[in-house]
Amino acid sequence: MQPEAARSDPALPALAGEAVAQRRALDRLFRDAALRDGAVEREFPPLLEIAALERADYFRSFPQHASLIAPLERAVLPEVAAHGARGARALASADLATPRHLMTPAACYALYPALADRALAVPCSVTLVSDCCRHEADYDAGVRQWCFRMRETVHFGTAESVRACLATWTQRILAWGAAAGLQCSIAPATDSFFDPQDPRRLLQRLEPNKHEVLWDGRIALASLNFHRTFFGERYGIRDADGRPVFSGCVAFGLDRWLLACRSRCGERLRDWPAVLRGGSDA
Amino acid sequence: MQPEAARSDPALPALAGEAVAQRRALDRLFRDAALRDGAVEREFPPLLEIAALERADYFRSFPQHASLIAPLERAVLPEVAAHGARGARALASADLATPRHLMTPAACYALYPALADRALAVPCSVTLVSDCCRHEADYDAGVRQWCFRMRETVHFGTAESVRACLATWTQRILAWGAAAGLQCSIAPATDSFFDPQDPRRLLQRLEPNKHEVLWDGRIALASLNFHRTFFGERYGIRDADGRPVFSGCVAFGLDRWLLACRSRCGERLRDWPAVLRGGSDA
Repeated sequence: MQPEAARSDPALPALAGEAVAQRRALDRLFRDAALRDGAVEREFPPLLEIAALERADYFRSFPQHASLIAPLERAVLPEVAAHGARGARALASADLATPRHLMTPAACYALYPALADRALAVPCSVTLVSDCCRHEADYDAGVRQWCFRMRETVHFGTAESVRACLATWTQRILAWGAAAGLQCSIAPATDSFFDPQDPRRLLQRLEPNKHEVLWDGRIALASLNFHRTFFGERYGIRDADGRPVFSGCVAFGLDRWLLACRSRCGERLRDWPAVLRGGSDA
Repeated sequence: MQPEAARSDPALPALAGEAVAQRRALDRLFRDAALRDGAVEREFPPLLEIAALERADYFRSFPQHASLIAPLERAVLPEVAAHGARGARALASADLATPRHLMTPAACYALYPALADRALAVPCSVTLVSDCCRHEADYDAGVRQWCFRMRETVHFGTAESVRACLATWTQRILAWGAAAGLQCSIAPATDSFFDPQDPRRLLQRLEPNKHEVLWDGRIALASLNFHRTFFGERYGIRDADGRPVFSGCVAFGLDRWLLACRSRCGERLRDWPAVLRGGSDA
């Protein structure tokens, strides 16, 4: 066996060989476009405080996706050290300390708490990448994973500057999809960061705040989200006049882009169109 | 406020601006050296099965470090959806499903289960990077974080090929440290992947299997680990003759390298010595 031979767990698949460099090249493509626009880079650990995410009412909307993290209770440490975590001593939820963190379900959720309750110099953009987790009933490697990598660029400004930013990204994504030979289309999406009880859900149906770029009409490679002042209000992110900022984000599912581009452009990075490989090495 | 202004949680610190590109440049430096040696790239999600890590008796050795991951119990989902996770409905460990995963405590722990119970074409090397988690009583941003990023290169072969590989890496690390103007020294370390009850702990004192590269005599920037046949035996990774392979690894703490290099070479990547920046952009 060669060391690149992969064990396959569709929930938590591993990459090997060229695929690692290809996912890195795609991430660089999306990051460099944001940096050329003047975006600032940030990077957060994938662990997020429950209390920080609760300001966006995440647990009311998607409790089934949450992947909670906790250390062992101090009291059980001697027993686990003596017997390990196998067989009769298999760990149970009662062995855990109270969970105060979860794996972030999207890259941008780490950003709003970091900017909370202050005035922000707008317009501005931030680009960031993270491993993200959404627990699901079924998984499909490359398409629907428990853990997946997401690149996001978030823009803060006015309603007009957010709309203009999302329009620019829409055109870019369609151009990249075309360069890769992918059949891409834009569709409004109903998946939302709003609580299902929230009256803004109705507003969303009238003026959609989320669009997806679909590959072959089925798989969302990217989403474009107009948040209005949702995060500005929930996290107290204000402009110089004290008003909640408008925001929007573009999110790239890097594992899906990898699957799509490998299927169309091949398994060797050097065979990919130059526009996808970028100017620098992977 | 500019969007790069950082909230500070020493357990889970965020990077902003140039620091993100600098950590990426350091990772590329260590990765490219491995690739030039012929190493294969792999990349795993940071979630690891408890059962897979138990083959290395991790929970007997370091139960206090474990960061367990579990979704919510299905039965509590309606209540959490109705009330969120705040106030009276704050999540408790009893709300969690049985934990079957944890955040990997080192990048290489994901590799051995993926290669388990098969014959491996040796000698060979694998390089991989991961966010890792070790729960601690106290944290110090950049030095001792709950979540940190680790680049590792693992070599599988004979006792001689492992020793030769680790010797090459030792010289490289000292050269990189010198290029950055860092005071680096090599010291044997007692921290071990062996269970404290394991008689190999004694053997380790006689012929140390772990050395660290210390910055200013205090902070381990890298570790060089000679596993003997520990992982070969525990995971059933065999050579063509059916014998457990020898292995060793070199591990880089990227957040510590970032702290050290920024302190000596400055906060702008373009001011860093060319050898640290590599030939390509970050």
